[in-house]
Amino acid sequence: MAFECTKEYIEDIKSLISNKQSAHLTSKLKILHFADLAELMNQLLAIESVYLIKILDTHKTSEALAELNEDTREQILQKLSAKEIAEELEELDTDDAADIVNELSDEKAKRVIDQIEDEDHVEHIIELLSYEENTAGAFMAKELVMVNENWGVPQCLQEIRNQAKNITRVHSIYVVDDKGILKGRLSLKDLMISPSSYNISQVYIPKVDYVTVATEVEDVARLMQKYDLEAIPVVGNQLELLGRITIDDIVDFIKEEADKDYQLAAGISKDVEADDSILELTKARLPWLVLGLFGGLCSVYIMKGFEHALEQFPVLFFFTPLIAAMAGNVGVQSSAIIVQGLANGHLKGSAWSRLLKEVGLSLINGLTLGILVILFGFIVGQNHWVSLTIAISLLLVNIVASLVGTFIPIILHKRGIDPAIATGPFITTSNDIFGIFLFFHISKWILGF
Amino acid sequence: MAFECTKEYIEDIKSLISNKQSAHLTSKLKILHFADLAELMNQLLAIESVYLIKILDTHKTSEALAELNEDTREQILQKLSAKEIAEELEELDTDDAADIVNELSDEKAKRVIDQIEDEDHVEHIIELLSYEENTAGAFMAKELVMVNENWGVPQCLQEIRNQAKNITRVHSIYVVDDKGILKGRLSLKDLMISPSSYNISQVYIPKVDYVTVATEVEDVARLMQKYDLEAIPVVGNQLELLGRITIDDIVDFIKEEADKDYQLAAGISKDVEADDSILELTKARLPWLVLGLFGGLCSVYIMKGFEHALEQFPVLFFFTPLIAAMAGNVGVQSSAIIVQGLANGHLKGSAWSRLLKEVGLSLINGLTLGILVILFGFIVGQNHWVSLTIAISLLLVNIVASLVGTFIPIILHKRGIDPAIATGPFITTSNDIFGIFLFFHISKWILGF
Repeated sequence: MAFECTKEYIEDIKSLISNKQSAHLTSKLKILHFADLAELMNQLLAIESVYLIKILDTHKTSEALAELNEDTREQILQKLSAKEIAEELEELDTDDAADIVNELSDEKAKRVIDQIEDEDHVEHIIELLSYEENTAGAFMAKELVMVNENWGVPQCLQEIRNQAKNITRVHSIYVVDDKGILKGRLSLKDLMISPSSYNISQVYIPKVDYVTVATEVEDVARLMQKYDLEAIPVVGNQLELLGRITIDDIVDFIKEEADKDYQLAAGISKDVEADDSILELTKARLPWLVLGLFGGLCSVYIMKGFEHALEQFPVLFFFTPLIAAMAGNVGVQSSAIIVQGLANGHLKGSAWSRLLKEVGLSLINGLTLGILVILFGFIVGQNHWVSLTIAISLLLVNIVASLVGTFIPIILHKRGIDPAIATGPFITTSNDIFGIFLFFHISKWILGF
Repeated sequence: MAFECTKEYIEDIKSLISNKQSAHLTSKLKILHFADLAELMNQLLAIESVYLIKILDTHKTSEALAELNEDTREQILQKLSAKEIAEELEELDTDDAADIVNELSDEKAKRVIDQIEDEDHVEHIIELLSYEENTAGAFMAKELVMVNENWGVPQCLQEIRNQAKNITRVHSIYVVDDKGILKGRLSLKDLMISPSSYNISQVYIPKVDYVTVATEVEDVARLMQKYDLEAIPVVGNQLELLGRITIDDIVDFIKEEADKDYQLAAGISKDVEADDSILELTKARLPWLVLGLFGGLCSVYIMKGFEHALEQFPVLFFFTPLIAAMAGNVGVQSSAIIVQGLANGHLKGSAWSRLLKEVGLSLINGLTLGILVILFGFIVGQNHWVSLTIAISLLLVNIVASLVGTFIPIILHKRGIDPAIATGPFITTSNDIFGIFLFFHISKWILGF
């Protein structure tokens, strides 16, 4: 059952394509799940994938197209005509179709939409494109099973059979009134065990979780995770049922968001993978390194300002990487906890209590580290005043760095900027500079140079 | 619909508990979803939660118990008798029940199991406890709907009704033969539209994804995500159907793993939240800071070894934080991409091609940074040899740091250690040391001090 997209397999397919062995390819690829076909196509040249799209069943290639890496899909779509793209979109659920239309140029999108024959499908796609990015409206699909509360059980069963033909999986059956307002839900199980003389209004469950088209996808994900939902209906302002979001899309969303945050924390600014090109990887990584370079140059200038202390206290200059590293580490620790708390909606309590807590935490960590440095000083016979200076600096740097790490993400979040961008190089670099600045000022004050 | 666990709400509940207003509490909490009740209980004292558990419906409190933070649950379980815990476990699905039993001391677990009345339930829990941690066996639940391929459609419908009573949600109906071997699956939808004269063997879908009890949960998650599965059957060595895993548990797993990796990358070694106690947070953060401290002290010693260069080239010492920061950043970038590639199973190609790629990438980044440093040197009138030294060091440090960042996670992974532990402070600290070591050796070689 496990599909392995090995090098040999890819080579085999490539050679079949170059020899135009369409019959052989069709029978070989027929057994693949569309997700496996997408995995394969991610490894092929665009022109090879286009050949496959032309010879294979649209039902499968359309789903594979929706699963592809964005870059790969872009290259393939460029090689397909508006008519060919439209044929693929006809097969897809509205959410996937809208996503693909969204990636096309305005002009091509228009031509593609004109070529789609199913008018309802077009209308639905255009509706989905009208909602703001990252909202439930833009994320939902129009495919759902909907029954009227006034229907009888047999009519309802018949309607479900009709509607379900176009829907891959029936998650829930939603119950609406004559105006299309969401009233509740119905489980197939309950429907099956209901007497056929019943009306739907006697059978349905009036309690139903829902979100509105304006709800952020992040909040939808949180809700579905919390309440273990497999699908959630999306409604408009008048509670009219407009679409539904299913858990498989939310799983992808959660994974992508987590990957993105992880990369941001590591100083990678675009969504890249180990197997992307060197150019792609450079574009994602170099900007943060340049930021680090400028931060480092600032530190050079701070230290130049204390050059006169070199002769008397050279050891201070040996300790700067330690101070900088500590400031960076503490900052990243603090910000990571805050970024996660914000993302998970767990952050409670006032800014004031958070400040007290961070200071308390830094006091404990800073004192421990300070004591270790003083012990180290005793062991190696370091000037006691120098040890004390370093210990006090570590304590204060800990406090400042943790406050920076705590409050920068909170402030960014309040201003509507993704706080994840703060964790990582941004916090590290600014804390490096703060740390070294503080360290030399404290040294000057204690050692009096 | 949105439940908000506000401070006022919590205070209100606390005062009702202290006044033993059980009737009032029961009616007030009846409307809560168990996930909301868990959210509330996470904010209460253990003794207050125990009071709620005693007055509320076990059906709801058991589910809430399963949703609680582990620390909170531990405190509550300590205050409940074996009999009381057994009553809660009777209501839970086997997977949640087994998780809770797993958290008890051996002695208490035994007493609790002895008190569970449903013998099947006990047998199932004991079976689940027998599988190795992090495998599908330990993660699955025994609750599923199973039909025999030889049954007729009407018998099957009747059996499903009987079995489904004990199951919150019917994801899939699994078809087995007389020996219990998994043969395929059946959708309720297909069953509903089949003539009643049919046998199940004429209706079921023989193609079914499955995993074995020994499959790692990580692989199960990857599979379910890739193929958009809502549930997957778990089989034994003879393909006998033993249990099933549902997507809601996988969603929690994916989120928890992502949070853990994110925290590890930020140098936080335990699963903590912003609202945990200062002590908990210190335990998670201090060890990495101490590691950073020892790393910093190593750097001090490396620099002490080059003390004689201080007089002639003090500027080198001003550049150490820059070199260290760059080495750390590059290492974290490389390792983050590898850790993610390993986690997502995307890492392809040989170690040799990866090495070439990393070197190529570092050459581009290192050359760019080197040119910027030389430009900076021109502008501020820095000794050209010093600028060149720093530029060459940046280039080499980039290469070494990216190789360290790439291969440490790969090696850890090969040895069965979670590579996520490498990203963050571990890589940063070791790269700081390597960077400074390289920098001074290159300086010595070029500048000849």
